[in-house]
Amino acid sequence: MERGLKVDYKAAIREIRGADAEALAKAREYCDSLIKPFGALGLLEDIAVRLSGITGSVKNSFDKRAIVVMAADNGVYEEGVAAAPQAFTLLQAVNMTRGICGVSVFSKAAGADLVVVDIGVMNPTGSDAVLDRNVKRGTDNMAVGPAMAREEAEAAIGVGFEAASDLFAQGYEILGTGEMGIANTTSTSACAIALLGLEPEYAIGRGAGLTDETLAHKIEVVKKAIAVNAPDGDDPVDVVSKVGGLDIAGLAGCFLAAAYHRKPVLIDGAISAVAALIAARLCPPAKDFMIATHRSTEPSYDAAIKELGLRPFLDMDMRLGEGSGCALALPIVLGACTMMNDMGTFADISFDDSVLVDIRDAD
Amino acid sequence: MERGLKVDYKAAIREIRGADAEALAKAREYCDSLIKPFGALGLLEDIAVRLSGITGSVKNSFDKRAIVVMAADNGVYEEGVAAAPQAFTLLQAVNMTRGICGVSVFSKAAGADLVVVDIGVMNPTGSDAVLDRNVKRGTDNMAVGPAMAREEAEAAIGVGFEAASDLFAQGYEILGTGEMGIANTTSTSACAIALLGLEPEYAIGRGAGLTDETLAHKIEVVKKAIAVNAPDGDDPVDVVSKVGGLDIAGLAGCFLAAAYHRKPVLIDGAISAVAALIAARLCPPAKDFMIATHRSTEPSYDAAIKELGLRPFLDMDMRLGEGSGCALALPIVLGACTMMNDMGTFADISFDDSVLVDIRDAD
Repeated sequence: MERGLKVDYKAAIREIRGADAEALAKAREYCDSLIKPFGALGLLEDIAVRLSGITGSVKNSFDKRAIVVMAADNGVYEEGVAAAPQAFTLLQAVNMTRGICGVSVFSKAAGADLVVVDIGVMNPTGSDAVLDRNVKRGTDNMAVGPAMAREEAEAAIGVGFEAASDLFAQGYEILGTGEMGIANTTSTSACAIALLGLEPEYAIGRGAGLTDETLAHKIEVVKKAIAVNAPDGDDPVDVVSKVGGLDIAGLAGCFLAAAYHRKPVLIDGAISAVAALIAARLCPPAKDFMIATHRSTEPSYDAAIKELGLRPFLDMDMRLGEGSGCALALPIVLGACTMMNDMGTFADISFDDSVLVDIRDAD
Repeated sequence: MERGLKVDYKAAIREIRGADAEALAKAREYCDSLIKPFGALGLLEDIAVRLSGITGSVKNSFDKRAIVVMAADNGVYEEGVAAAPQAFTLLQAVNMTRGICGVSVFSKAAGADLVVVDIGVMNPTGSDAVLDRNVKRGTDNMAVGPAMAREEAEAAIGVGFEAASDLFAQGYEILGTGEMGIANTTSTSACAIALLGLEPEYAIGRGAGLTDETLAHKIEVVKKAIAVNAPDGDDPVDVVSKVGGLDIAGLAGCFLAAAYHRKPVLIDGAISAVAALIAARLCPPAKDFMIATHRSTEPSYDAAIKELGLRPFLDMDMRLGEGSGCALALPIVLGACTMMNDMGTFADISFDDSVLVDIRDAD
């Protein structure tokens, strides 16, 4: 099989078309025929319709499911922006495959397989359970120069595109996205600032337990990275190569692959959302294949999701990452299918049409 | 078996004690030992700890689950406050048991049995699948007098208490709550106004598709019901009997029974939330056994949930009722158990203690 560095995602994504307009219309019409007032299931109805636009079918089921996790290290770690030891990236990538992390247990509960990809971990994981697609052994420190070369960022997008494409070839029908990489909220914030023009003081979150002092330091480091690299906000590959990460680039590739294969792909937290934004900037119709899940507390999340025109449905102040939010939210997305597949329609119950109008508008 | 009218819920609820403080503390401690930064799973951690406070055990599973639906008609229907025909209450109560309603399909997907109780439907359902616990064949029109006698409200609370108690006796470990009753957002709004001192213009929602004119009419009807009956906001039984409904009273009984049997009980939308509020006013420690699920768009929901000190986690603009939100949200509540039961602890991975401090505070 062709490996990541050779995937020509740039050619592939030119073929991507947005949601199937006819399927969207048919799905909305069918949804309105179900035994409930119009719109009474709110966002769940929107998700159901969205899924139809993705697959082209009014009724859907997604029986083979996966959460794909991109693991990578970040050179900016050496600026002291993260409290956890850098070795935790590798350790947790392996722990995920051992079934003991958040994403592991929620994936299992949701009937999703977990696929962990080493796209840029600093040292070899030494685990056969982690997919070795290492593009670079951690990024360089973006506070002193570009995190990686443009070619490396493109290779990482290609790896993500290929990894997701492989899963679809294996019969997977829906993907969740996750990441593991100490200091990757720093690179994510930098990308969000460059892409969305956010103020650093707004975009950079406290993460878990950062003190005022360490938060101020993180803001200074990101400002320095932006000043040193001058990423071009209109060129997402420039942004992710200069101030991003291999995990972010890899996830962007996953989002593009889902759109190319016309499969739904779930956004997790801020890192995943910024990767989705990069994918959408590279290929706007790719947006139509994304589904937001939980509202992250990281400030860059909201800005990215807003541009994507999406709305998360789980509001739990979660900030674990790993793809844990996607996995936890998966049953709700599948609930949209349950609604379409299993609810009865007004045709199943015997009221005449004049009464129907009232019921559908019912309180 | 003793039947509803004879259950002495008033004696029973005097024995209710709140959450198990020791289990709460142990659960929080265990939660903090899991492989994740402190608090990184946000509200899911709070739910897990809450479940421990309810059951007394740090680890929990709820394998036998039910959604209980109280169906009842409302005399205020004759004021023209609802668009749907009144017969829809009976029809939908039966349809639920046929597996074709929202609550039916989501319950099945979540592995929960659906129990539909006729606590006050206007006509006999004629269905063996609906539990016949009819207290009164629909309330009287609250716009011209009390919806029911105080004794009838107490009987309805007793029916709910008994129905839930019977389910616990059958081995059910967690309950969701739902209702079916045309015009029951009108009675719910009236209860919320009486109990919480809300302004009618704020508390009364547009429901699904009410026009400005019909909304104004609904507000006038509720104002009239309050003026005619002068419910005592400090006496929840007075409120539910004068301007409430048999479904609301029955659900209040379910909430009390869950607390009495120390089992978790899920709140659905506004009607369920106001019933929970009535239960909590009758017996404040009963609050500790309630879990909010989705944020209803009905205005009285927020006010009731706030007094209960709860926070919903699904934000989907749903307003179907039926208990559909509880059933849809059930996998998330069970996810809190998955977290506690299946995630590894820091003791499972080999870092020394000095490093642990950093990881737990990690970004």
